[in-house]
Amino acid sequence: MKNYKLTIAYDGTNYHGWQMQANARTIQGELTRVLSVLDHRPVTLQGAGRTDAGVHAQAQVANIFLEREFAPAQLREAVNGNLDRDLRITQVELVDEAFEARFSARGKTYVYEISTAPVISPFDFRYVYHYRGTLDVEAMQDAALLLVGTHDFSAFTVASIETTDRLRTLRQLDIDARHHSIRITASAEGFLRYMVRTIAGTLIDVGRGRRTAMSVGEALASRNRQQAGPKAPAHGLTLVRVDY
Amino acid sequence: MKNYKLTIAYDGTNYHGWQMQANARTIQGELTRVLSVLDHRPVTLQGAGRTDAGVHAQAQVANIFLEREFAPAQLREAVNGNLDRDLRITQVELVDEAFEARFSARGKTYVYEISTAPVISPFDFRYVYHYRGTLDVEAMQDAALLLVGTHDFSAFTVASIETTDRLRTLRQLDIDARHHSIRITASAEGFLRYMVRTIAGTLIDVGRGRRTAMSVGEALASRNRQQAGPKAPAHGLTLVRVDY
Repeated sequence: MKNYKLTIAYDGTNYHGWQMQANARTIQGELTRVLSVLDHRPVTLQGAGRTDAGVHAQAQVANIFLEREFAPAQLREAVNGNLDRDLRITQVELVDEAFEARFSARGKTYVYEISTAPVISPFDFRYVYHYRGTLDVEAMQDAALLLVGTHDFSAFTVASIETTDRLRTLRQLDIDARHHSIRITASAEGFLRYMVRTIAGTLIDVGRGRRTAMSVGEALASRNRQQAGPKAPAHGLTLVRVDY
Repeated sequence: MKNYKLTIAYDGTNYHGWQMQANARTIQGELTRVLSVLDHRPVTLQGAGRTDAGVHAQAQVANIFLEREFAPAQLREAVNGNLDRDLRITQVELVDEAFEARFSARGKTYVYEISTAPVISPFDFRYVYHYRGTLDVEAMQDAALLLVGTHDFSAFTVASIETTDRLRTLRQLDIDARHHSIRITASAEGFLRYMVRTIAGTLIDVGRGRRTAMSVGEALASRNRQQAGPKAPAHGLTLVRVDY
Protein backbone atom coordinates (compact mmCIF):
# COMPACT_ATOMS: atom_id res chain seq x y z
CA MET A 1 0.00 0.00 0.00
CA LYS A 2 1.22 3.46 -0.91
CA ASN A 3 0.24 6.60 0.93
CA TYR A 4 -0.68 9.55 -1.30
CA LYS A 5 -0.95 13.15 -0.18
CA LEU A 6 -3.56 15.03 -2.19
CA THR A 7 -3.79 18.82 -2.39
CA ILE A 8 -7.33 19.78 -3.29
CA ALA A 9 -9.03 22.99 -4.47
CA TYR A 10 -12.78 23.50 -4.57
CA ASP A 11 -15.49 26.03 -5.08
CA GLY A 12 -17.71 24.89 -2.21
CA THR A 13 -20.87 26.58 -3.57
CA ASN A 14 -22.49 23.38 -4.77
CA TYR A 15 -21.24 21.00 -2.07
CA HIS A 16 -22.63 20.13 1.33
CA GLY A 17 -19.21 20.57 2.87
CA TRP A 18 -16.24 18.27 3.15
CA GLN A 19 -17.61 15.36 5.13
CA MET A 20 -19.18 12.36 3.44
CA GLN A 21 -22.95 12.10 3.85
CA ALA A 22 -25.38 9.47 2.69
CA ASN A 23 -27.66 11.63 0.57
CA ALA A 24 -25.69 14.76 -0.18
CA ARG A 25 -22.92 15.69 -2.56
CA THR A 26 -19.79 16.42 -0.54
CA ILE A 27 -16.11 16.89 -1.33
CA GLN A 28 -14.99 13.81 0.60
CA GLY A 29 -17.86 11.83 -0.93
CA GLU A 30 -16.96 12.75 -4.51
CA LEU A 31 -13.26 12.01 -4.03
CA THR A 32 -13.98 8.74 -2.22
CA ARG A 33 -16.31 7.62 -5.00
CA VAL A 34 -13.69 8.17 -7.70
CA LEU A 35 -10.74 6.80 -5.68
CA SER A 36 -12.70 3.65 -4.78
CA VAL A 37 -13.34 2.98 -8.45
CA LEU A 38 -9.65 3.51 -9.25
CA ASP A 39 -8.49 1.21 -6.45
CA HIS A 40 -11.20 -1.41 -7.13
CA ARG A 41 -12.32 -1.37 -3.49
CA PRO A 42 -13.90 1.00 -0.98
CA VAL A 43 -11.24 3.40 0.28
CA THR A 44 -11.20 5.97 3.05
CA LEU A 45 -9.90 9.46 2.52
CA GLN A 46 -8.60 11.44 5.51
CA GLY A 47 -8.86 15.21 5.23
CA ALA A 48 -6.83 17.78 7.16
CA GLY A 49 -10.08 19.26 8.40
CA ARG A 50 -13.75 19.46 7.63
CA THR A 51 -14.97 22.52 5.84
CA ASP A 52 -18.64 23.51 6.23
CA ALA A 53 -21.19 23.49 3.45
CA GLY A 54 -20.44 26.38 1.08
CA VAL A 55 -16.87 26.96 2.29
CA HIS A 56 -14.13 26.92 -0.37
CA ALA A 57 -10.56 25.65 -0.42
CA GLN A 58 -7.52 26.73 -2.38
CA ALA A 59 -5.40 23.99 -0.84
CA GLN A 60 -7.16 21.49 1.38
CA VAL A 61 -5.03 18.41 2.06
CA ALA A 62 -6.01 14.75 2.38
CA ASN A 63 -4.20 11.44 2.34
CA ILE A 64 -5.20 8.03 1.09
CA PHE A 65 -3.72 4.54 1.05
CA LEU A 66 -4.13 2.78 -2.30
CA GLU A 67 -3.30 -0.79 -3.25
CA ARG A 68 -2.67 0.12 -6.87
CA GLU A 69 0.45 2.06 -7.68
CA PHE A 70 0.16 5.31 -9.58
CA ALA A 71 2.63 7.90 -10.72
CA PRO A 72 1.52 11.11 -8.94
CA ALA A 73 0.54 12.98 -12.13
CA GLN A 74 -1.27 9.90 -13.43
CA LEU A 75 -3.36 9.64 -10.25
CA ARG A 76 -4.14 13.37 -10.37
CA GLU A 77 -5.32 13.13 -13.99
CA ALA A 78 -7.36 9.98 -13.39
CA VAL A 79 -9.22 11.53 -10.48
CA ASN A 80 -9.73 14.96 -12.06
CA GLY A 81 -11.10 13.34 -15.19
CA ASN A 82 -13.99 12.01 -13.11
CA LEU A 83 -14.84 15.11 -11.11
CA ASP A 84 -16.79 18.25 -11.89
CA ARG A 85 -14.55 21.19 -12.65
CA ASP A 86 -15.43 22.97 -9.40
CA LEU A 87 -13.38 20.30 -7.59
CA ARG A 88 -9.76 19.60 -8.56
CA ILE A 89 -6.79 17.72 -7.21
CA THR A 90 -4.00 20.21 -7.81
CA GLN A 91 -1.13 18.02 -6.61
CA VAL A 92 -0.39 14.41 -5.68
CA GLU A 93 2.70 13.37 -3.72
CA LEU A 94 3.86 9.96 -2.53
CA VAL A 95 4.45 10.28 1.20
CA ASP A 96 5.73 8.21 4.07
CA GLU A 97 3.13 5.86 5.49
CA ALA A 98 3.27 7.73 8.81
CA PHE A 99 1.85 10.84 7.14
CA GLU A 100 -1.71 11.63 8.19
CA ALA A 101 -3.33 14.71 6.67
CA ARG A 102 -5.25 15.40 9.83
CA PHE A 103 -2.80 14.66 12.61
CA SER A 104 0.41 15.65 10.88
CA ALA A 105 -0.90 19.16 10.15
CA ARG A 106 1.05 21.87 11.95
CA GLY A 107 -1.16 24.74 10.95
CA LYS A 108 -4.08 25.94 8.85
CA THR A 109 -4.82 29.31 7.33
CA TYR A 110 -8.26 30.57 6.42
CA VAL A 111 -9.26 33.80 4.72
CA TYR A 112 -12.66 35.40 5.22
CA GLU A 113 -13.42 37.94 2.52
CA ILE A 114 -15.87 40.82 2.86
CA SER A 115 -16.79 43.51 0.36
CA THR A 116 -18.49 46.77 1.23
CA ALA A 117 -18.58 47.91 -2.42
CA PRO A 118 -22.00 48.91 -3.76
CA VAL A 119 -21.77 46.15 -6.38
CA ILE A 120 -20.09 42.74 -6.21
CA SER A 121 -18.55 41.56 -9.46
CA PRO A 122 -20.20 38.53 -11.13
CA PHE A 123 -16.74 36.96 -10.94
CA ASP A 124 -16.50 37.30 -7.15
CA PHE A 125 -19.94 36.92 -5.62
CA ARG A 126 -19.52 33.23 -4.81
CA TYR A 127 -16.46 33.91 -2.64
CA VAL A 128 -17.14 37.23 -0.97
CA TYR A 129 -19.62 38.22 1.73
CA HIS A 130 -21.35 41.43 0.67
CA TYR A 131 -21.84 43.81 3.57
CA ARG A 132 -23.92 46.79 2.49
CA GLY A 133 -22.53 49.54 4.63
CA THR A 134 -19.27 50.77 6.04
CA LEU A 135 -17.13 48.90 8.52
CA ASP A 136 -14.76 50.47 11.04
CA VAL A 137 -11.64 48.50 10.18
CA GLU A 138 -9.56 49.98 13.00
CA ALA A 139 -12.08 48.85 15.59
CA MET A 140 -12.07 45.39 13.99
CA GLN A 141 -8.27 45.31 14.21
CA ASP A 142 -8.39 46.31 17.88
CA ALA A 143 -10.83 43.50 18.58
CA ALA A 144 -8.77 40.99 16.59
CA LEU A 145 -5.71 41.68 18.76
CA LEU A 146 -7.66 40.54 21.81
CA LEU A 147 -8.24 37.12 20.22
CA VAL A 148 -4.68 36.35 19.12
CA GLY A 149 -2.86 33.89 21.37
CA THR A 150 -3.77 30.78 23.35
CA HIS A 151 -7.29 30.92 24.76
CA ASP A 152 -10.31 28.80 25.52
CA PHE A 153 -12.44 29.62 22.46
CA SER A 154 -15.71 28.15 23.83
CA ALA A 155 -17.50 31.42 23.06
CA PHE A 156 -16.57 31.11 19.37
CA THR A 157 -17.77 27.60 18.58
CA VAL A 158 -21.04 25.67 18.76
CA ALA A 159 -22.36 25.51 22.31
CA SER A 160 -23.15 21.80 22.05
CA ILE A 161 -19.73 20.83 20.75
CA GLU A 162 -18.44 17.50 22.03
CA THR A 163 -14.84 18.67 22.04
CA THR A 164 -13.86 19.13 25.66
CA ASP A 165 -10.51 20.78 24.98
CA ARG A 166 -11.37 24.15 23.56
CA LEU A 167 -7.97 25.66 24.04
CA ARG A 168 -6.58 26.84 20.71
CA THR A 169 -3.69 29.06 19.73
CA LEU A 170 -4.64 31.73 17.23
CA ARG A 171 -1.25 32.64 15.75
CA GLN A 172 -2.50 35.25 13.36
CA LEU A 173 -5.70 37.25 12.98
CA ASP A 174 -5.00 40.00 10.48
CA ILE A 175 -7.44 42.37 8.89
CA ASP A 176 -6.36 43.94 5.63
CA ALA A 177 -8.53 46.59 4.04
CA ARG A 178 -8.07 47.88 0.52
CA HIS A 179 -10.73 50.05 -1.03
CA HIS A 180 -13.98 48.22 -0.36
CA SER A 181 -12.38 44.84 0.23
CA ILE A 182 -11.69 43.52 3.73
CA ARG A 183 -9.82 40.27 4.28
CA ILE A 184 -9.59 38.51 7.60
CA THR A 185 -6.69 36.04 7.70
CA ALA A 186 -6.68 33.52 10.52
CA SER A 187 -3.91 30.99 11.23
CA ALA A 188 -3.81 28.35 13.95
CA GLU A 189 -2.59 24.84 14.52
CA GLY A 190 -6.26 23.89 14.65
CA PHE A 191 -9.66 25.54 14.85
CA LEU A 192 -12.87 24.61 16.62
CA ARG A 193 -16.03 24.09 14.62
CA TYR A 194 -17.41 27.36 13.17
CA MET A 195 -14.59 29.22 14.93
CA VAL A 196 -13.38 31.30 11.98
CA ARG A 197 -16.92 32.18 10.89
CA THR A 198 -17.91 33.12 14.45
CA ILE A 199 -14.81 35.29 14.80
CA ALA A 200 -15.58 36.92 11.43
CA GLY A 201 -19.22 37.51 12.38
CA THR A 202 -18.21 39.02 15.70
CA LEU A 203 -15.61 41.28 14.09
CA ILE A 204 -18.20 42.43 11.54
CA ASP A 205 -20.49 43.35 14.46
CA VAL A 206 -17.62 45.45 15.85
CA GLY A 207 -17.02 47.03 12.43
CA ARG A 208 -20.61 48.08 12.07
CA GLY A 209 -20.68 49.54 15.59
CA ARG A 210 -23.03 47.02 17.14
CA ARG A 211 -20.48 46.20 19.82
CA THR A 212 -17.16 47.52 21.08
CA ALA A 213 -13.77 45.96 20.45
CA MET A 214 -13.44 45.51 24.21
CA SER A 215 -16.63 43.44 24.36
CA VAL A 216 -14.93 40.84 22.16
CA GLY A 217 -12.30 40.27 24.83
CA GLU A 218 -15.09 39.96 27.38
CA ALA A 219 -16.90 37.42 25.18
CA LEU A 220 -13.70 35.37 24.94
CA ALA A 221 -13.22 35.44 28.71
CA SER A 222 -16.85 34.44 29.32
CA ARG A 223 -16.45 31.18 27.35
CA ASN A 224 -20.15 31.63 26.67
CA ARG A 225 -21.35 31.25 23.07
CA GLN A 226 -24.12 33.77 23.74
CA GLN A 227 -21.55 36.50 24.25
CA ALA A 228 -20.00 36.25 20.75
CA GLY A 229 -21.61 37.41 17.52
CA PRO A 230 -23.40 35.39 14.84
CA LYS A 231 -21.36 33.23 12.51
CA ALA A 232 -20.66 34.96 9.19
CA PRO A 233 -22.05 33.31 6.01
CA ALA A 234 -20.10 30.27 4.78
CA HIS A 235 -19.45 31.51 1.24
CA GLY A 236 -17.00 34.22 2.35
CA LEU A 237 -14.64 31.64 3.83
CA THR A 238 -11.75 29.88 2.06
CA LEU A 239 -9.21 27.42 3.46
CA VAL A 240 -6.06 28.72 1.81
CA ARG A 241 -3.29 26.58 3.28
CA VAL A 242 -2.44 23.59 5.46
CA ASP A 243 1.13 23.43 6.73
CA TYR A 244 3.05 20.27 7.63
CA MET B 1 -36.70 61.23 -21.55
CA LYS B 2 -33.30 60.78 -19.97
CA ASN B 3 -30.47 58.84 -21.53
CA TYR B 4 -28.62 56.51 -19.17
CA LYS B 5 -25.26 54.92 -19.83
CA LEU B 6 -24.97 51.54 -18.15
CA THR B 7 -21.70 49.72 -17.51
CA ILE B 8 -22.37 46.01 -17.21
CA ALA B 9 -20.38 43.02 -15.98
CA TYR B 10 -21.38 39.41 -16.56
CA ASP B 11 -20.24 35.85 -16.29
CA GLY B 12 -21.57 34.68 -19.65
CA THR B 13 -21.53 30.96 -18.75
CA ASN B 14 -25.28 30.68 -18.31
CA TYR B 15 -26.40 33.14 -21.00
CA HIS B 16 -27.03 32.71 -24.69
CA GLY B 17 -25.00 35.79 -25.45
CA TRP B 18 -25.90 39.46 -25.44
CA GLN B 19 -28.65 39.68 -28.01
CA MET B 20 -32.30 39.29 -27.07
CA GLN B 21 -33.89 36.06 -28.25
CA ALA B 22 -37.44 34.80 -27.93
CA ASN B 23 -36.78 31.59 -26.05
CA ALA B 24 -33.34 31.96 -24.54
CA ARG B 25 -31.91 33.76 -21.55
CA THR B 26 -29.66 36.55 -22.79
CA ILE B 27 -27.96 39.57 -21.24
CA GLN B 28 -29.95 42.09 -23.29
CA GLY B 29 -33.12 40.12 -22.62
CA GLU B 30 -32.66 40.10 -18.84
CA LEU B 31 -31.81 43.80 -18.70
CA THR B 32 -34.67 44.74 -21.02
CA ARG B 33 -37.14 42.74 -18.92
CA VAL B 34 -36.16 44.54 -15.71
CA LEU B 35 -35.86 48.01 -17.27
CA SER B 36 -39.25 47.66 -18.96
CA VAL B 37 -40.85 46.90 -15.60
CA LEU B 38 -39.12 49.91 -14.03
CA ASP B 39 -40.19 52.26 -16.81
CA HIS B 40 -43.73 50.82 -17.02
CA ARG B 41 -43.39 50.26 -20.79
CA PRO B 42 -41.36 48.19 -23.23
CA VAL B 43 -37.92 49.73 -23.60
CA THR B 44 -35.04 49.07 -25.95
CA LEU B 45 -31.49 48.71 -24.72
CA GLN B 46 -28.61 49.46 -27.10
CA GLY B 47 -25.38 47.63 -26.39
CA ALA B 48 -21.90 48.65 -27.54
CA GLY B 49 -21.57 45.28 -29.18
CA ARG B 50 -22.95 41.78 -29.15
CA THR B 51 -21.03 39.18 -27.23
CA ASP B 52 -21.46 35.53 -28.23
CA ALA B 53 -23.02 32.88 -26.03
CA GLY B 54 -20.61 32.05 -23.21
CA VAL B 55 -18.47 35.18 -23.60
CA HIS B 56 -17.97 37.32 -20.48
CA ALA B 57 -17.76 41.05 -19.87
CA GLN B 58 -16.01 43.09 -17.23
CA ALA B 59 -17.34 46.35 -18.66
CA GLN B 60 -19.84 46.08 -21.48
CA VAL B 61 -21.66 49.35 -22.12
CA ALA B 62 -25.27 50.03 -23.11
CA ASN B 63 -27.57 53.02 -23.15
CA ILE B 64 -31.27 53.36 -22.58
CA PHE B 65 -33.84 56.13 -22.70
CA LEU B 66 -36.25 56.07 -19.76
CA GLU B 67 -39.35 58.18 -19.13
CA ARG B 68 -39.00 57.90 -15.38
CA GLU B 69 -36.20 59.80 -13.72
CA PHE B 70 -33.78 57.94 -11.50
CA ALA B 71 -30.72 58.94 -9.58
CA PRO B 72 -27.91 56.85 -11.10
CA ALA B 73 -27.24 54.79 -7.96
CA GLN B 74 -30.97 54.25 -7.47
CA LEU B 75 -31.37 52.88 -10.99
CA ARG B 76 -28.34 50.63 -10.54
CA GLU B 77 -29.73 49.21 -7.30
CA ALA B 78 -33.24 48.74 -8.69
CA VAL B 79 -31.97 46.79 -11.69
CA ASN B 80 -29.39 44.72 -9.81
CA GLY B 81 -32.00 43.75 -7.25
CA ASN B 82 -33.91 41.98 -10.01
CA LEU B 83 -31.04 40.19 -11.73
CA ASP B 84 -29.11 37.03 -10.94
CA ARG B 85 -25.74 37.72 -9.38
CA ASP B 86 -23.83 36.61 -12.47
CA LEU B 87 -25.10 39.79 -14.18
CA ARG B 88 -24.53 43.23 -12.60
CA ILE B 89 -24.80 46.85 -13.56
CA THR B 90 -21.61 48.27 -12.11
CA GLN B 91 -22.24 51.89 -12.99
CA VAL B 92 -25.01 54.19 -14.21
CA GLU B 93 -24.36 57.65 -15.64
CA LEU B 94 -26.74 60.26 -17.01
CA VAL B 95 -25.48 61.14 -20.47
CA ASP B 96 -26.27 63.51 -23.29
CA GLU B 97 -29.12 62.35 -25.48
CA ALA B 98 -26.72 62.11 -28.43
CA PHE B 99 -24.80 59.32 -26.70
CA GLU B 100 -25.26 55.92 -28.32
CA ALA B 101 -23.41 52.99 -26.76
CA ARG B 102 -22.91 51.38 -30.12
CA PHE B 103 -22.09 54.25 -32.44
CA SER B 104 -20.29 56.51 -29.99
CA ALA B 105 -17.78 53.79 -29.08
CA ARG B 106 -14.23 54.67 -30.10
CA GLY B 107 -12.68 51.36 -29.19
CA LYS B 108 -13.16 47.99 -27.56
CA THR B 109 -10.71 45.72 -25.80
CA TYR B 110 -11.08 41.98 -25.43
CA VAL B 111 -8.89 39.52 -23.55
CA TYR B 112 -8.66 35.86 -24.51
CA GLU B 113 -7.21 33.79 -21.70
CA ILE B 114 -5.48 30.43 -22.14
CA SER B 115 -3.92 28.17 -19.55
CA THR B 116 -1.45 25.40 -20.30
CA ALA B 117 -1.20 24.38 -16.63
CA PRO B 118 -1.88 20.70 -15.89
CA VAL B 119 -4.81 21.70 -13.68
CA ILE B 120 -7.20 24.65 -13.93
CA SER B 121 -8.31 26.09 -10.62
CA PRO B 122 -12.01 25.65 -9.72
CA PHE B 123 -12.07 29.42 -9.42
CA ASP B 124 -10.92 30.00 -13.01
CA PHE B 125 -12.28 27.26 -15.25
CA ARG B 126 -15.28 29.29 -16.41
CA TYR B 127 -13.04 32.04 -17.81
CA VAL B 128 -9.99 30.27 -19.16
CA TYR B 129 -9.50 27.97 -22.14
CA HIS B 130 -7.49 24.95 -21.04
CA TYR B 131 -4.96 23.90 -23.64
CA ARG B 132 -3.27 20.67 -22.60
CA GLY B 133 0.18 21.03 -24.04
CA THR B 134 2.83 23.66 -24.59
CA LEU B 135 2.45 26.69 -26.82
CA ASP B 136 5.28 28.49 -28.61
CA VAL B 137 4.53 32.01 -27.41
CA GLU B 138 7.22 33.64 -29.55
CA ALA B 139 5.76 32.18 -32.71
CA MET B 140 2.33 33.39 -31.61
CA GLN B 141 3.75 36.89 -31.08
CA ASP B 142 5.34 36.85 -34.54
CA ALA B 143 2.00 35.89 -36.07
CA ALA B 144 0.15 38.53 -34.07
CA LEU B 145 2.37 41.29 -35.47
CA LEU B 146 1.19 40.39 -38.96
CA LEU B 147 -2.41 41.07 -37.99
CA VAL B 148 -1.97 44.46 -36.32
CA GLY B 149 -3.02 47.39 -38.47
CA THR B 150 -5.78 48.10 -40.96
CA HIS B 151 -6.74 45.06 -43.02
CA ASP B 152 -9.66 43.31 -44.63
CA PHE B 153 -10.35 40.66 -41.98
CA SER B 154 -12.65 38.49 -44.12
CA ALA B 155 -10.54 35.42 -43.31
CA PHE B 156 -11.21 35.93 -39.60
CA THR B 157 -14.99 36.20 -39.54
CA VAL B 158 -17.95 34.07 -40.60
CA ALA B 159 -17.90 33.38 -44.32
CA SER B 160 -21.61 34.15 -44.69
CA ILE B 161 -21.43 37.47 -42.89
CA GLU B 162 -23.68 40.16 -44.33
CA THR B 163 -21.22 42.92 -43.47
CA THR B 164 -19.69 44.07 -46.71
CA ASP B 165 -17.08 46.35 -45.20
CA ARG B 166 -14.64 44.02 -43.56
CA LEU B 167 -11.88 46.52 -43.14
CA ARG B 168 -10.95 46.86 -39.48
CA THR B 169 -8.03 48.43 -37.65
CA LEU B 170 -6.50 46.16 -35.07
CA ARG B 171 -4.68 48.65 -32.86
CA GLN B 172 -3.26 46.13 -30.43
CA LEU B 173 -2.77 42.38 -30.43
CA ASP B 174 -0.52 41.55 -27.50
CA ILE B 175 0.36 38.18 -26.14
CA ASP B 176 1.54 38.06 -22.54
CA ALA B 177 2.76 34.82 -21.09
CA ARG B 178 3.38 34.25 -17.41
CA HIS B 179 4.02 30.75 -16.16
CA HIS B 180 1.26 28.66 -17.68
CA SER B 181 -1.05 31.58 -18.38
CA ILE B 182 -1.27 33.19 -21.81
CA ARG B 183 -3.37 36.29 -22.40
CA ILE B 184 -4.20 37.66 -25.81
CA THR B 185 -5.29 41.31 -25.65
CA ALA B 186 -7.00 42.72 -28.73
CA SER B 187 -8.08 46.35 -29.21
CA ALA B 188 -9.87 47.87 -32.17
CA GLU B 189 -12.46 50.49 -32.92
CA GLY B 190 -14.69 47.59 -33.90
CA PHE B 191 -14.48 43.88 -34.56
CA LEU B 192 -16.19 41.59 -37.05
CA ARG B 193 -18.28 38.70 -35.81
CA TYR B 194 -16.13 35.92 -34.22
CA MET B 195 -13.03 37.94 -35.14
CA VAL B 196 -11.28 37.78 -31.76
CA ARG B 197 -12.06 34.09 -31.28
CA THR B 198 -10.88 33.26 -34.82
CA ILE B 199 -7.67 35.20 -34.26
CA ALA B 200 -7.17 33.41 -30.92
CA GLY B 201 -7.83 30.01 -32.49
CA THR B 202 -5.42 30.72 -35.33
CA LEU B 203 -2.71 31.92 -32.94
CA ILE B 204 -3.19 28.78 -30.83
CA ASP B 205 -2.64 26.70 -33.99
CA VAL B 206 0.61 28.61 -34.50
CA GLY B 207 1.59 28.07 -30.85
CA ARG B 208 1.10 24.33 -31.09
CA GLY B 209 3.09 24.15 -34.31
CA ARG B 210 0.23 23.24 -36.62
CA ARG B 211 0.99 26.21 -38.84
CA THR B 212 3.70 28.83 -39.21
CA ALA B 213 3.48 32.45 -38.14
CA MET B 214 3.96 33.40 -41.79
CA SER B 215 0.89 31.41 -42.83
CA VAL B 216 -1.24 33.74 -40.71
CA GLY B 217 -0.21 36.70 -42.86
CA GLU B 218 -1.06 34.62 -45.90
CA ALA B 219 -4.48 33.76 -44.47
CA LEU B 220 -5.14 37.44 -43.87
CA ALA B 221 -4.15 38.35 -47.44
CA SER B 222 -6.31 35.56 -48.87
CA ARG B 223 -9.50 37.00 -47.31
CA ASN B 224 -10.66 33.40 -47.30
CA ARG B 225 -12.19 32.02 -44.09
CA GLN B 226 -10.84 28.57 -44.95
CA GLN B 227 -7.28 29.82 -44.60
CA ALA B 228 -7.61 30.88 -40.94
CA GLY B 229 -7.82 28.54 -37.96
CA PRO B 230 -10.88 27.42 -35.98
CA LYS B 231 -12.50 29.85 -33.59
CA ALA B 232 -11.34 29.34 -30.01
CA PRO B 233 -13.99 28.38 -27.42
CA ALA B 234 -16.23 31.21 -26.22
CA HIS B 235 -15.59 30.83 -22.49
CA GLY B 236 -11.95 32.07 -22.73
CA LEU B 237 -13.08 35.46 -24.04
CA THR B 238 -13.92 38.55 -21.97
CA LEU B 239 -14.88 42.05 -23.14
CA VAL B 240 -12.81 44.14 -20.76
CA ARG B 241 -13.39 47.71 -21.92
CA VAL B 242 -15.32 49.98 -24.24
CA ASP B 243 -13.83 53.42 -24.80
CA TYR B 244 -15.76 56.57 -25.72
